[in-house]
Amino acid sequence: MDKERDGLIRHFLLENNIGAIIFWRPEELVMATGYYPLWGLSFCLYPDYGEPIVYVPALEPKDQLPNGFLIKEFEWGKLNVVNPWAGLYQMVQQDLCTLNPNKLPITFQKTASQSSLSQIAAEEPALPLDLIENLIQISEGGFKNYDNEIVELFVIKTVLEIERIKLANKIAVTGLECFYRNIRVGLTEVELSSLVESKIQSQTGNSGVRYAKAWAFVMSGINSIFGGTFGRNSGRRLENGDIVLLELAVCVNGYWSDLTRVGTIGDICEEKQHIFSVVKSAYNLALGLVKSGSNAGEIDRKVREYITHNGFGEYYQHALGHHVGFRYHDYGQSLRPNSELILKEGMVITIEPGIYVPEIEVGVSMEDNVLVKKNGYEILSRHPIDLY
Amino acid sequence: MDKERDGLIRHFLLENNIGAIIFWRPEELVMATGYYPLWGLSFCLYPDYGEPIVYVPALEPKDQLPNGFLIKEFEWGKLNVVNPWAGLYQMVQQDLCTLNPNKLPITFQKTASQSSLSQIAAEEPALPLDLIENLIQISEGGFKNYDNEIVELFVIKTVLEIERIKLANKIAVTGLECFYRNIRVGLTEVELSSLVESKIQSQTGNSGVRYAKAWAFVMSGINSIFGGTFGRNSGRRLENGDIVLLELAVCVNGYWSDLTRVGTIGDICEEKQHIFSVVKSAYNLALGLVKSGSNAGEIDRKVREYITHNGFGEYYQHALGHHVGFRYHDYGQSLRPNSELILKEGMVITIEPGIYVPEIEVGVSMEDNVLVKKNGYEILSRHPIDLY
Repeated sequence: MDKERDGLIRHFLLENNIGAIIFWRPEELVMATGYYPLWGLSFCLYPDYGEPIVYVPALEPKDQLPNGFLIKEFEWGKLNVVNPWAGLYQMVQQDLCTLNPNKLPITFQKTASQSSLSQIAAEEPALPLDLIENLIQISEGGFKNYDNEIVELFVIKTVLEIERIKLANKIAVTGLECFYRNIRVGLTEVELSSLVESKIQSQTGNSGVRYAKAWAFVMSGINSIFGGTFGRNSGRRLENGDIVLLELAVCVNGYWSDLTRVGTIGDICEEKQHIFSVVKSAYNLALGLVKSGSNAGEIDRKVREYITHNGFGEYYQHALGHHVGFRYHDYGQSLRPNSELILKEGMVITIEPGIYVPEIEVGVSMEDNVLVKKNGYEILSRHPIDLY
Repeated sequence: MDKERDGLIRHFLLENNIGAIIFWRPEELVMATGYYPLWGLSFCLYPDYGEPIVYVPALEPKDQLPNGFLIKEFEWGKLNVVNPWAGLYQMVQQDLCTLNPNKLPITFQKTASQSSLSQIAAEEPALPLDLIENLIQISEGGFKNYDNEIVELFVIKTVLEIERIKLANKIAVTGLECFYRNIRVGLTEVELSSLVESKIQSQTGNSGVRYAKAWAFVMSGINSIFGGTFGRNSGRRLENGDIVLLELAVCVNGYWSDLTRVGTIGDICEEKQHIFSVVKSAYNLALGLVKSGSNAGEIDRKVREYITHNGFGEYYQHALGHHVGFRYHDYGQSLRPNSELILKEGMVITIEPGIYVPEIEVGVSMEDNVLVKKNGYEILSRHPIDLY
């Protein structure tokens, strides 16, 4: 158990006079317990005092459950069990009688509609449609909505969590190295993407790596202009003179990294080099403004002004960055125009300016994951961003 | 446009006196239009008469949109657009005025809580939380729930759809071949899994393959006992005498295949061979019962009786099969005890018996995708299931 995280959750509960908080989205379990559910159907009941409980479905593997939590099983996945959820609700209700004797209200994230993927791939198992209604009524003390406050639990990462996000970035960097090592004329985008994904995933089982999963999007030549619009691999073969974008999402043990790099093949023209240098200057400008107390809206504005001043304003139409770590795009206000986010120590954000010019078939973007510090920042993804 | 599918949808609308049906889950778009949304945020308004409309978010790629549908764009993903959904609802509302002049009720799948993944990976973009409430009120003719009937649209596949599911299976089979070719002592599960995924995904861009994605789970030795419980890759190195399970999910252009095979390394003991032969006989027993008019509950019962008769009943604790094609696990009743599903021509189902014996550290399962025909069946995944 991460004592610092435990302290943050208990402080939130005590400060708001809440009896307990319930977590179930995969990123919530990762944040609260450090454990990344395989099926995405695990629940955590975290009381103001006393031992927190993790409820896992019958089919969940038992070798990755978190220490410091009482583990209970409910019957999801067993053949012929018609409604496993009734059993879960009953357990939670009974446990609340013990853990919440003063019948204080409980809370949980009510309005988040998006969550990270679970470990099980190809399809996310379904939660019950009436889950929220049932959980709202589960405590005699009632429910109180603290959705705005709960987000605050996600935006600051603990020392241990930062180490884990660093591990995700370290493994992601081996994917970047694989990308630059293998980039060559004739390879298709999807072949290069598969090499990168394979390199990262094959580290599953290495020291401290229980789960490593990568989604790599390679977008080359004309396809690079879509780098700010969507991620996709095609069968296009890399050509001499290409700009090649790599958008890379990596999840290690439930902690996420989100990186972008630009590669080139052969000699690239001066125009492409110029766009690269403008994006790199924008990236460095943004980095130089990251420190505790900075206003994210202002950083976004300065970067946007710089790119506009260089004549590419209309070709940069996405946000400058977002929180990252418990999710690929984490909870909390992003770095965008008019953002009111004030950076604080312990936040982990992305910095990802880009320029995409359809007329000349060039897209350039670069992205790193950055820890906000008192007087500056630390880049968590140790890999150069130069063109090569 | 698939005329047979169009006929099925119009027939459903006319028979029930519904003015239009709205689709938005990725598998719904695939079923109704043959187009697999990249962001998973596309909507289709399908009227009883007149041209159906597909609404796509601003960031959706424009090169894969379906023929025979009117395409409209809404502002999701544009920087500084606060509520893109209001614009979408307004468009749908206006289009309904034209397409539903008699103000008949409309419908859509209201209670499905699970959907297939979209093409965009790592994280599913969020739909608005109040989507269902808004769509219920979108037509002057009101809303009527036909959730049971809508499922019927998914369980029968058209001739064209069967061809597309065959393509997914054909590409999945190249993954099976890759699995058997590369299985060897010393390779880790996750390395073998990555080779299979890479083999499949690298076919993106080949003739007719716009998108190919694979999720391979390799579970070897003691890990094979979890084959019926969950899918996971570990860093375990394959050893001589291992049973090696491969669970393989493949999506090609939005159509799904779900296969399982067993490999071995070196000589395997008689006990393992015996379990394999029991599962294979159970698989063949099930296949022999598949034809139009068969009762799925009865097929499941006979297979379960056979496995029980051979002494392994307690080691077979999952369903015999399920629909497959528009999803990895498609809508409709599965083949399980007490299932009331009656097989019909044009259904595509999986057959996947298994035996998992923790005491002797052996799990064996095999799975194919099978088209139900008038007097029998056709296996869509042409690859032997023998031990090798």
